Amino acid sequence: MSASNQSTISTLSADALPRAVEWRQGELYLLDQTRLPHEAAMEKQESAEQVWQAIKMLKVRGAPAIGVAGAYGLCVAMRGHRDLTAEAFLAEMDRQAAYLDSSRPTAVNLGWALKRMCDAARRSAAGDGRALYDVLVAEAEAIHEEDRRLCLGMGLNGADLIRDGMGILTHCNAGALATSELGTATAPMYVAQSRGVKFRVYADETRPLLQGARLTVWELQRSGIDVTLITDNMAAQMMKEGRIDLVITGTDRVAANGDVANKIGTLGVAILARYFDIPFYVACPSSTIDLNAATGEDIPIEERDEEEVTAFGGRRTAPEGVGVRNPAFDVTPNALVAGLITEKGIVRAPYEENLRALFG
Amino acid sequence: MSASNQSTISTLSADALPRAVEWRQGELYLLDQTRLPHEAAMEKQESAEQVWQAIKMLKVRGAPAIGVAGAYGLCVAMRGHRDLTAEAFLAEMDRQAAYLDSSRPTAVNLGWALKRMCDAARRSAAGDGRALYDVLVAEAEAIHEEDRRLCLGMGLNGADLIRDGMGILTHCNAGALATSELGTATAPMYVAQSRGVKFRVYADETRPLLQGARLTVWELQRSGIDVTLITDNMAAQMMKEGRIDLVITGTDRVAANGDVANKIGTLGVAILARYFDIPFYVACPSSTIDLNAATGEDIPIEERDEEEVTAFGGRRTAPEGVGVRNPAFDVTPNALVAGLITEKGIVRAPYEENLRALFG
Repeated sequence: MSASNQSTISTLSADALPRAVEWRQGELYLLDQTRLPHEAAMEKQESAEQVWQAIKMLKVRGAPAIGVAGAYGLCVAMRGHRDLTAEAFLAEMDRQAAYLDSSRPTAVNLGWALKRMCDAARRSAAGDGRALYDVLVAEAEAIHEEDRRLCLGMGLNGADLIRDGMGILTHCNAGALATSELGTATAPMYVAQSRGVKFRVYADETRPLLQGARLTVWELQRSGIDVTLITDNMAAQMMKEGRIDLVITGTDRVAANGDVANKIGTLGVAILARYFDIPFYVACPSSTIDLNAATGEDIPIEERDEEEVTAFGGRRTAPEGVGVRNPAFDVTPNALVAGLITEKGIVRAPYEENLRALFG
Repeated sequence: MSASNQSTISTLSADALPRAVEWRQGELYLLDQTRLPHEAAMEKQESAEQVWQAIKMLKVRGAPAIGVAGAYGLCVAMRGHRDLTAEAFLAEMDRQAAYLDSSRPTAVNLGWALKRMCDAARRSAAGDGRALYDVLVAEAEAIHEEDRRLCLGMGLNGADLIRDGMGILTHCNAGALATSELGTATAPMYVAQSRGVKFRVYADETRPLLQGARLTVWELQRSGIDVTLITDNMAAQMMKEGRIDLVITGTDRVAANGDVANKIGTLGVAILARYFDIPFYVACPSSTIDLNAATGEDIPIEERDEEEVTAFGGRRTAPEGVGVRNPAFDVTPNALVAGLITEKGIVRAPYEENLRALFG
């Protein structure tokens, strides 16, 4: 990495960027994102159950951050088992990893990070629980640092897409709050901003959980980026008015053929972008690329609780007894994707071939 | 009108359908729709200012209901002026009509109904304020009754589009609550239901004011129609899953070329429907057809308060100081419209020619 890239890191990792996951003096802290934008509270994680709940309840969310939180979460889970023999420690570790993995079925990073943690422990020469625990912590820290570098890589590769005067639409939060540092969809924005490029971001509020309104707006505003909030159903009108030149979203999982699973509503945004002839890009660290999923059909879609749709802020907005659908994700077909912004470069169609060439 | 149509009216005007506007013993009552689905409260209107506020604050909403409420609202405004001479009464009437008309700029029905009221008074041979007031009440009642018949006409013409097993997507509330009886977009649904056709409606919640979740779901559920609530950004996924066979929305104003102004988000739904090859229909009583607007470009789009987007139920959901857009409407180009369901039949492209032939 060049010196100028290093300076970009240090410029951008200043206090302007919030931290979703922090490991400090052997303790895991997670920013409770469900309380944003009202409160930015770091919660110390005391048990595997607490981490499981934090992931399940979206206190920590965003594929990369979930992976990092899961990795440190395994450390939290194993902290009390350091007195075990190596064999007993590894058996308990597998149990705890499977448990943590069950908190979010769609997030491929979680399973990926937990498997990597377990592999590192097994591969190590550590002879007892205490030494194995140290291996786990070192591996989690490595995952964390790699994620920072993935974000920077996406930022550097995607920043050239952003030119002065552009309007950029994003959906949900694929920002610093969803990762370890620059975010995924936001990384090109933060890098472009650090280069002095002037642009405006339109943030979909992203029902039902309003990650756009609560999180994306909060972190972009905090970083001095010009941001305008819209409801999801205003995206077409913004495009029609000529205000959107580029769409960048994140992703939870990308299939081998380039189909993109992301927050519900992404598919709609991609179709609108196609209609208005606006390029639709997806920021996609290699950790979200799942070459084992041939197409989007192979990605399971989590259906979440009805109350997310029928209520808001504890107040019910729909009559009792109504039928509800609440898929948390949708799959955007590769044909609608102008490019995948990865840490190794922007991947374009044909995706199957080009993804395998870079990441196979 | 045939006997069977008459029986359809009486079948469907039963208590299953809510009343948005009621004129009873010389008093105007409006259902406060901002309190639905929690409370169905009829509010007696004591002054023109109260009616102006009710329209402005969306207590009464939906183009046809606003027209009817505006017509009766002019009666409320003029009730205290019955002792005036004919000349003074007419001058005050014009002033009050202009005032009421200023409550919602986009609703063509409001201006249309108020102009019709004033024309009727001027045209009449009534010699004093008291007689002119009676002319106004009779005209408002005629507008109300005609709206009931418009809804029935759209219902009968549109019902044949709905077949057993279909899924129908609708946006916002163009239902009984938006009109005098069967609604506009819902009229074909209520008529199909009365014929025993089984179908399911998917209702977009329709941010920012949630008319779909609060109103459409409430009235369809109350009438025994199978209804499923989704957030606006789930429409594409429902279409992709093959659950939507037909889209029907209402409209606030249709231009001479068939461009359709309707609740924000309609344009997006129409684009999605085109992508998935699903017919997109608009229920459109002749009172919403504005042949003076050549295209959708001639329809002004109301921009509403930021707080509708940044807060919900009194609780702020976005950080202070963020930029916000809040256009209340968008315009769907005629090329995306499969047909306009009017009381005189379904109008299809070329719209300019066919609309003028029927309504010019």
